[in-house]
Amino acid sequence: MAHALPVSPLALPLPELKEVRGVRLGAAEAGIRYKGRTDLVLAEFVPGTTVAGVFTRSKCPGAPVDWCRDILPTGEARALVVNAGNANVFTGRAGRETCKATAEATALLAGCTPQAVYLASTGVIGEILPHERMTAALPALHEALSATGWEAAARGIMTTDTFPKAAVRTAKLNGTDVLIQGIAKGSGMVAPDMATMLAFVATDAALPAPVLQALLSQGVKTTFNCITVDSDTSTSDMVLLFATGAAANDELSASTQANAEALTDFREALQGVLHDLAQLVIRDGEGATKLMTISVTGAVSDDSAWRVAMAIGNSPLVKTAVAGEDANWGRIVMAVGKCGEPADRDTLSVSIGGVCIARDGTVVPGYDETPVVAHMKGHEIDIAVDLGLGNGTARAWSCDLTHGYIDINGSYRS
Amino acid sequence: MAHALPVSPLALPLPELKEVRGVRLGAAEAGIRYKGRTDLVLAEFVPGTTVAGVFTRSKCPGAPVDWCRDILPTGEARALVVNAGNANVFTGRAGRETCKATAEATALLAGCTPQAVYLASTGVIGEILPHERMTAALPALHEALSATGWEAAARGIMTTDTFPKAAVRTAKLNGTDVLIQGIAKGSGMVAPDMATMLAFVATDAALPAPVLQALLSQGVKTTFNCITVDSDTSTSDMVLLFATGAAANDELSASTQANAEALTDFREALQGVLHDLAQLVIRDGEGATKLMTISVTGAVSDDSAWRVAMAIGNSPLVKTAVAGEDANWGRIVMAVGKCGEPADRDTLSVSIGGVCIARDGTVVPGYDETPVVAHMKGHEIDIAVDLGLGNGTARAWSCDLTHGYIDINGSYRS
Repeated sequence: MAHALPVSPLALPLPELKEVRGVRLGAAEAGIRYKGRTDLVLAEFVPGTTVAGVFTRSKCPGAPVDWCRDILPTGEARALVVNAGNANVFTGRAGRETCKATAEATALLAGCTPQAVYLASTGVIGEILPHERMTAALPALHEALSATGWEAAARGIMTTDTFPKAAVRTAKLNGTDVLIQGIAKGSGMVAPDMATMLAFVATDAALPAPVLQALLSQGVKTTFNCITVDSDTSTSDMVLLFATGAAANDELSASTQANAEALTDFREALQGVLHDLAQLVIRDGEGATKLMTISVTGAVSDDSAWRVAMAIGNSPLVKTAVAGEDANWGRIVMAVGKCGEPADRDTLSVSIGGVCIARDGTVVPGYDETPVVAHMKGHEIDIAVDLGLGNGTARAWSCDLTHGYIDINGSYRS
Repeated sequence: MAHALPVSPLALPLPELKEVRGVRLGAAEAGIRYKGRTDLVLAEFVPGTTVAGVFTRSKCPGAPVDWCRDILPTGEARALVVNAGNANVFTGRAGRETCKATAEATALLAGCTPQAVYLASTGVIGEILPHERMTAALPALHEALSATGWEAAARGIMTTDTFPKAAVRTAKLNGTDVLIQGIAKGSGMVAPDMATMLAFVATDAALPAPVLQALLSQGVKTTFNCITVDSDTSTSDMVLLFATGAAANDELSASTQANAEALTDFREALQGVLHDLAQLVIRDGEGATKLMTISVTGAVSDDSAWRVAMAIGNSPLVKTAVAGEDANWGRIVMAVGKCGEPADRDTLSVSIGGVCIARDGTVVPGYDETPVVAHMKGHEIDIAVDLGLGNGTARAWSCDLTHGYIDINGSYRS
């Protein structure tokens, strides 16, 4: 079972979690799939909370993704319900009815419309998600909601995750101190495309929904969209960002641009939270023992650099070499060569652990593998590629491909 | 070491190999990387032999790929030299000099120009390939060439392959019986793009080089370009097709189209050889225990169907599920959804082993998993997806992802 997996050697402890004013949350055992652990999370937001979201680009999205996309244009949120163990994907009419019933039951408890209730599900695809188990568990869970429920929520959304994931930052916004705090889950089927596995971030800042959306959409580009565990994009990817306004900072106009000066500090803090959460997902990549950071420079554009970085991060041969602690730079050359982006063998250079191994179309004269071999034995592997063509850069994160990945995915229907 | 791997459970015995008139070949131990096995193959063709080739689209091709591309426009071939253990890729000036020296030494033996000598290398990337070992071994190898050397050649080009691969067909061409016979190697780093791992096919037919090229380019589209072991495209992919003309069939004009009536039987036989060789590569996929055949219908175009089929065949989650004998059709839905091709959850249907499991956006009412579970226990897994959108179709072949793949690639620098 998922929760019996050994903890990732790349795990980090939870940061010291704060209370985000305007948010109360908690978790309960609804018995949806797992036994003896929480699998249902409820969060309630104060009236006036704005929301932004990004979702999977999968052509076969789950019912909760459709639900959230439909209600997002209002820009308002009062509650969030997340269940683990069943993704409610490819469940047809029954899946849509589960969403409706869950939102209605939650709306009654929170005193809002169902269209202010956000839903997310994660777990097995193609099995009917019985809403009765959730609606039965919701009233007691609602009673017990607390501003200190963040860790419980981080644990309640886990599937094959081996440790809970959270990140926190503070920022000044129009002279007021605000807090940004988020949780995430994700371990396999991770190759986000404009979104990622589930991540939920809340801030007590007051921000109009369009501003929030612009900040989130910009923020995922260099964080969640730059991670991959296995190149497989989930049907359920979702990042939601809630702003309760409880910090009571001066209002910003809805037409404020994401790059506005007034948002600089907030934008950087949000970026930090998204970056931390994305990294934590990779640190819990199924079977992962090494965190790979892939830096690409000298590409014809940032987009091109991103595609090269992701090709390296997705290559099974690069990932198995890293697992085997083999500084097999030839496989990095292969991955650059295959990905269809402009590249020239004779201007390409490859470094591992800060040591330049190959350039000008051949191995560096007198290359001494010793420091690179030592670097490969660590938990954090740095790969840098310069294409020598332009000014495009990107950074991506991946993990190694090990027997653990095969064990988890060849035997557990997740 | 590569040659100590257990033989793939999907292995097939060599077919009864024939002599292709106009071709003599053989293998020798040049001691390039392996010990106690052959690693150098030489084939000599009679004067007048025409040649066609397709090559990797990698932006970082090996020196032998550059060499062959440069000489292909002449359309003539007199010899082929292949070595296993070192791919002569990313070896800069030294790599080019190795090609030149090897071709010159071979040309002296065969009595031709270096520009009629084709070269291929397979093995580790980024290490200098010492041409002295090859040129030292070539004279004795040339002395021993034989029309019956096909099996020796098939074994001599192996790297992580666990069994030798060959295919043979006969055809009528302008009323004359002709033979088509080929060998291939390939096991990992297999995701051909307009070519594949190494494959060499010879026929005694007399065919102008442009006709041969058209037939080969058309033939690889539905064979070598529809297989994948690990989504990693090699820097050394190459398929060469030689026509010795020794069958002395009536001549065809160089402007004959590949789809000409006169070529029907030959074209189909060639297709059969390419199909068999491509399948054999998948049957020897690193760590493979199951051969997956993925049929996609109902796509908006054949190209779109091909991309969907390859997305399924490349998905680590589908491949690990197959390894675990889990009929996890939800992961097939995920792979269809992620690949960016037109798809609609609500018109999609998924079958495994001939049993329709899901359609109309949900699981088939009363779906009985029993026959599907039995099918998953076999060695040949059939996956069929109908997108319900148009008339585009494609078929692709892949293999499962097992501990064996990790063992081979996490510990052996191939």
